[in-house]
Order: sequence, then structure tokens, then C-alpha cells
Amino acid sequence: MTEAFDAVDVIRAKRDGARLSPAQIDWVVDAYTRGVVADEQMSALAMAIFLNGMERAEISRWTEAMIRSGERMDFSGLDRPTADKHSTGGVGDKITLPLAPLVAVFGVAVPQLSGRGLGHTGGTLDKLEAIPGWRAGLSNEEILAQLGDVGAVICAAGSGLAPADKKLYALRDTSATVESIPLIASSIMSKKIAEGTGSLVLDVKVGTGAFMKDRHRAGELAQTMVELGTDAGVRTVALLTDMSTPLGLTVGNALEVRESVEVLAGGGPADVVELTVALAREMLDAAGRRDADPAAALADGRAMDVWRRMIAAQDGDPDAALPVARHTEQVLADRDGVVTVLDAYAVGVASWRLGAGRARKEDPVQAGAGIELHAKPGDRVRAGQPLMTLHTDTPERFARAQEALEGGVTVSAQETPRPHGIVLGRVAG
Amino acid sequence: MTEAFDAVDVIRAKRDGARLSPAQIDWVVDAYTRGVVADEQMSALAMAIFLNGMERAEISRWTEAMIRSGERMDFSGLDRPTADKHSTGGVGDKITLPLAPLVAVFGVAVPQLSGRGLGHTGGTLDKLEAIPGWRAGLSNEEILAQLGDVGAVICAAGSGLAPADKKLYALRDTSATVESIPLIASSIMSKKIAEGTGSLVLDVKVGTGAFMKDRHRAGELAQTMVELGTDAGVRTVALLTDMSTPLGLTVGNALEVRESVEVLAGGGPADVVELTVALAREMLDAAGRRDADPAAALADGRAMDVWRRMIAAQDGDPDAALPVARHTEQVLADRDGVVTVLDAYAVGVASWRLGAGRARKEDPVQAGAGIELHAKPGDRVRAGQPLMTLHTDTPERFARAQEALEGGVTVSAQETPRPHGIVLGRVAG
Repeated sequence: MTEAFDAVDVIRAKRDGARLSPAQIDWVVDAYTRGVVADEQMSALAMAIFLNGMERAEISRWTEAMIRSGERMDFSGLDRPTADKHSTGGVGDKITLPLAPLVAVFGVAVPQLSGRGLGHTGGTLDKLEAIPGWRAGLSNEEILAQLGDVGAVICAAGSGLAPADKKLYALRDTSATVESIPLIASSIMSKKIAEGTGSLVLDVKVGTGAFMKDRHRAGELAQTMVELGTDAGVRTVALLTDMSTPLGLTVGNALEVRESVEVLAGGGPADVVELTVALAREMLDAAGRRDADPAAALADGRAMDVWRRMIAAQDGDPDAALPVARHTEQVLADRDGVVTVLDAYAVGVASWRLGAGRARKEDPVQAGAGIELHAKPGDRVRAGQPLMTLHTDTPERFARAQEALEGGVTVSAQETPRPHGIVLGRVAG
Repeated sequence: MTEAFDAVDVIRAKRDGARLSPAQIDWVVDAYTRGVVADEQMSALAMAIFLNGMERAEISRWTEAMIRSGERMDFSGLDRPTADKHSTGGVGDKITLPLAPLVAVFGVAVPQLSGRGLGHTGGTLDKLEAIPGWRAGLSNEEILAQLGDVGAVICAAGSGLAPADKKLYALRDTSATVESIPLIASSIMSKKIAEGTGSLVLDVKVGTGAFMKDRHRAGELAQTMVELGTDAGVRTVALLTDMSTPLGLTVGNALEVRESVEVLAGGGPADVVELTVALAREMLDAAGRRDADPAAALADGRAMDVWRRMIAAQDGDPDAALPVARHTEQVLADRDGVVTVLDAYAVGVASWRLGAGRARKEDPVQAGAGIELHAKPGDRVRAGQPLMTLHTDTPERFARAQEALEGGVTVSAQETPRPHGIVLGRVAG
């Protein structure tokens, strides 16, 4: 078969700062998926993209090409609008759990295709798998049926979506080409657009616990993703939200499910409620439900009803006791004062080391492991008072978790201003 | 085995514009040779080097690391100094043939390890293989013996020199990372330094027929290579020489041998003699033979004597008739005037298409194929007078050769200034 382009010419074009043509992009993504463009060629191209960038039209086309490499879901047969959410990942970020059933209360279908955790950030599927019986893997038919019946699904993304992205992501991981905004944005958006949602709300985290530590870069990523969604005909909004400190008071799989259920019961930590309602508001607006009142649906138990049906539909027992770690250890305040720093990255790494996270995709996680926080930034504490409780089934891990926390928690005699709200900014198409 | 570094960290450092440490460079080159650093990682690193560059100390260390990946020849046991020459490749560039015996006349050993042609540039070994019986492959022992006996060797570079470079060069070729000055310079110099010469003269070609079309870039490459040689303790000088038009009046293997023998007999085209003597002068100076008179050694037959012994030592018959192509065709001037353009690249491609060159390493070449030039830039011609004669064994190739020449030869009614001399500049350590 004669190829339309030569890989070396395409790489050279981007290397020399040119804009890739639609035909070049279509070819190189397709040829890479077919194995005609070799890994060592794609990694060189990825590095050239990393260093020389891509324009909006190039990134849109690249995203389309990745979508075309696989199957595309279609929810247009449902009798209601669809809304989806994607978070760039954080520490203690259990928002998807209360959010999906909450939005479904208002007649919006929420097909939430999720992933597992890696490194210091947790994964939604790992959290839900702490619930006895719950299963992450659904067929496309099961997803459609559950959306029609319950209105909300949280499950594993099938491997048929954007296979070019899967192949490219693994390559970027080994070739130091992950942190490129065009490549990150197209990776996320190719999967989300292929999932077939009508509207999409992006939660772009900013701060030490986030992939993007820097507000400016996070804003650029949000803007790029919103443009990609808009170009693909998906109503897309992004919130920039704070990830300098963990969300809520729990980090770890079963611990975060417990806290999510508290939120669904009308309680829970203020920051988790604030962000859940803010994201629900955006999803409902995008789906045309401007008169919906998500806070009320948390307070009156409607969201909890959907949650219970959603968990049960995937063979989970919403009433079962959640797993508890076999060992705990407390971290105490060493002085009187105010908590000024509770670093999201330090807490995330500590929780990972306790067994809640994994270093490689194939590693198992402990359902009960993690960290309960007893004080958050701005809270006044006394010397000897517990700041947090560490949970694990394997107590030899406590020492390395404590090490990870060193320098990540500061109690200061000096009063500092209360932290700002959780939503730092908003980008709309 | 525990590795000293992680490939992703090394790539990321160069990607982010950092200087690589000596330990990082030693590791990454060695680990790539061992296969621990994968092709897709090395190509990403090569692209980062292409776009972000390397400083002098980095390039020197990179070159050393490539030398250490293989064997290193040692001529210190010889009773005379050694001098070597490298050309970046051109059209009609047969200079090595008269040059090696000419320098050997003055008691300087010339170990000229050479390669084959690729694309529009010819290769020294292809040319010499036009001589009946001559063999390119010598063992290290044969090389040493011939240097002691005859004083000059032109033969194939063994595969044991800088194997890291061989692996990296093939990768660069497929990943659009060839035209990087740090990578070109370290590739050339790692092999030349591993060859163990005491002094080295570089012929860096500039112009349409050269790898470097641009004078400024060629100067940068020359400067970088001279620095690398100097840093490795090799006396190194570079001449920048013109490659906008072919050297001499012949292009093609046997045709160029014939012209080289004319030069060794005290005749030959002025530009070939000029460049041969200029390079010999530099090699002799670098080897401490400042009173040698290379022009005299061409005129009085001493260089020819060494040539005949050098060819015979490698089983070639210096008196044998050279192969002649079975078919010829003339290209005629279409008007009266002065030749103003005779483009080296056009002539090189035409000669290649006639069968003198190859597209892939494993392709054969025709010994007799090529082009005889009857006029050079500055020469006055009349309409219908032959400008060149094309030679090939396969006459169906004439049409494509003529095509390659289109636009590459200009006869103008307007008198233009005679072309400048062949040596455009000089860079010394």
C-alpha cells in the first residue's frame, strides 16, 4: 500500500515550526495506529510538538483523528440530554461519586466513564470498588440501559475509545512528552468526545496536588480543552479549582466513599459540597436545566436515592459495611497554633504509600488504606491534638508515609488569612 | 542491574533546556548501546537536542561516550606521525584518491577509513572499487602493516568503531533529527577520533551539492568539529570549500578514478589540484612537515609512485583498464553564451540516476556510470556544443538523468564574474 505521506517529512515540518496540514495529521495518527509510523518516529514528533506547539486548528484535527481511530458512543437515542464531567485529578477528589447521581436527579443522563488512580492521585473506579460487589466493567448495552433506567453510570472506559490515544499516551510516558498542553488536551478530549456526551464540564485542578501546579498553565490547558470541545460541537465549560490542599477530610478509597455518602446524606465537608454543587450547576446549565436546585437535591435525599440505585445496578450493595484498614496511627500537632499548610501532594504521596494508590497500572490497591484529616488550613489546633489518622493493612508502611508528610504540614503561631474558595476561575466556549 | 539514571529524567532535562551532566551523557549513550534506553526514548532525546542544542562540553562528552562504545585504533607504534582527512561529502569529490598518497610521500602516515556513497554524493570506496581487483576490507593488522610499508591506506571503516553512532545514525535518519550540528559533529568526530589519528583536516563543503547549503551553518559545523577534535587532543583544522558546482570534470566512480590519476600524473583540472594541494598543505602542517612541497610531489611523480603501491597493496591493478559504460549521450548547449550555473546537486542527482549512486546502502552501483563535464561555470560555449556526456550501462536511465539536470545548467548571454577560488574559509583550533 502506498502511504500518503512520509513520516520523516511530517516530523521535519513540525520540527521546523510549520503548521501540520489536516491531511498530514489524519495520516500520521492513523499510520501510527496501524504501526506504519514507528514508536521512535512518533516520540520524535511528540517532542517536536512539545517544543514547537500546535495551533487550535491543528489540535482540533489531531483530536478528531484520535477519535476516528476507535469507536464512538452515541447517546442520541436517550430521551434526555447528557452531561459529563472530567477532572484532571487531585488528592481526595471524590466529587464524581456524589455529582453523577445529583445531576441525574434532574433528568440529565450522566455517562461517567472513569479511570483508575496512578501515583499520588486517586481514581474513581478504585474508590467505588471499595463497595462490596460493585463492578466497574459494563458493556455499551449495559451503559445505555442504566442511563435510561437510573440516569447515571460510573464505569470503566472501554478500550475501544480512541485507541490511538492509549498507544500515544504510553509512548509519551516513556519519552518525557507528557506535559505538553496540546497533547494533554487532545488526549483528554478525544476520549471525552468519543464518549458521546452533549455537554462536558471540566474540573482543571491547580496547585501542588494537581498535574498543573501553576495557575497560568492550568488556565491555558482549560482554554485549550474548552476550544476543542466547542470545535467538536460539545457544550464545554471548565472550572479552575484549588488543589493545594486535599478536598474534604478523607483521602483513600473506602474513606472517600464514606465521605461521599455523607455529602449525599446532606452533610459532609463544606469544600466537597461547594465543589459538587458548583460542578452540578455547570452541568445542569449546559444541559438546559437552569431552574434545577442541586443543593436542595442533596438536602432532601433525592441524590441519595439515585446513588443507591446506581450502585445496586452495578451489583454493589449500598448498605454493606465498607472495608476498614487493620492498622491506624495518628499524626499529632507539635505546637499550639493554626494549620497554615496541608500540602495536597504530600498527603497524596503518603496515602499512596499507605496502600491506597499504585505506582504501576497493574498494582493492586488497599480498599481501607488512606488518611483521615482532623484539621484543615485555617483551623486552630493545640499541641498533641491529632492532625490526621493514617490507615493501612500493612503497618510497615507507616514510616514511609510519615516521611512523605515531612514539610507538608505546618502549624504556625501566626494567624494567616482563611483560605479562598475552591473555585478559582471559569472558562467557557 | 540498577541503572544510574532514568531515561525519562535525562530526556526531560534536555527538553527543558538544561545542560546534561557528564554522568548523564555517559549513561544515556551506554544504555542506548545496551538497549536499556529504547529507540523511542533516544529519538525523543535527539529531537530535544535538535531543538535545544548542546554546549561544547556536552558535545565533547557525547563524542567521547560514543567512542567508548567501541574499539579505538592506535597508531602510536608507527615511526611517523599520522594525518587523516574527512569530507562532509560532495559531487565529484575524488580528492581523497590523490591526497592520501600525496601526503604519504612526506613520511606522514595516512589511515583513510572511508565509506560508500548514498544519494547524490559519491563514496570513496565505490570509486576505488572501479579498479579491477581492489578490495576495500582490511583487518586492523593489514591497515597497520600497509601504513608502515606504503604509508597510505584507503579502506572501509570497521564496524567496531563507535557502534553507538551507527545505531544512533540509523535512528536519526528515520526520526528527522539528522540536521543537528551537535549530532552531526559528534557522529563524524567520534568515528574519526576512534580511528586514532594524531591530526585531522576537515573539508566542510558549502553549497547546493553539500549537506550544508548555507555558509553560516557550515561554518558553525566546522567550528564545532574543530573544537571536538581539539578537546580530544587531535590537532584539527577545517577548510570550508565550495560545493555549488561539481569538483573537476568528472562525476561517477571510474570516471573520477581516471581524473584522480591525471592529477597524480601532474595534470588534471585546476580546482581538483587546488583543493588537493590545499588539504595536503594543512595535513602536512598539522603533522609537523612545514617544509614539504606537495605541488612538487604531484609534478615529479612521487605521489603517483605511492598511489601505485597503495592500490597494489590492496590487490588492485593500477595498470588495468578502467570500466567504461556501455552507452553515452551528450547534453548540448542550446545557445551561445557563458555557463553561469552548473548546479552540483542537479549533476549529483543525474549521476546517481545514471547508476553511479545508490538510494539504499545495499544497492549496487555501476562502475562506469556518471557524467563528464565539458564546460564549467565561466566557460564560453556555442549553441550545439556538448556541455556534458552522460554515461550508463542502462540507457533507459538517460531520460530521468536529463530531467534531474533541468534548471541546473544555465548558459547566459550576459558575462558574469569568474567564480571565486575553491577554499572559502579556514577554522583552526
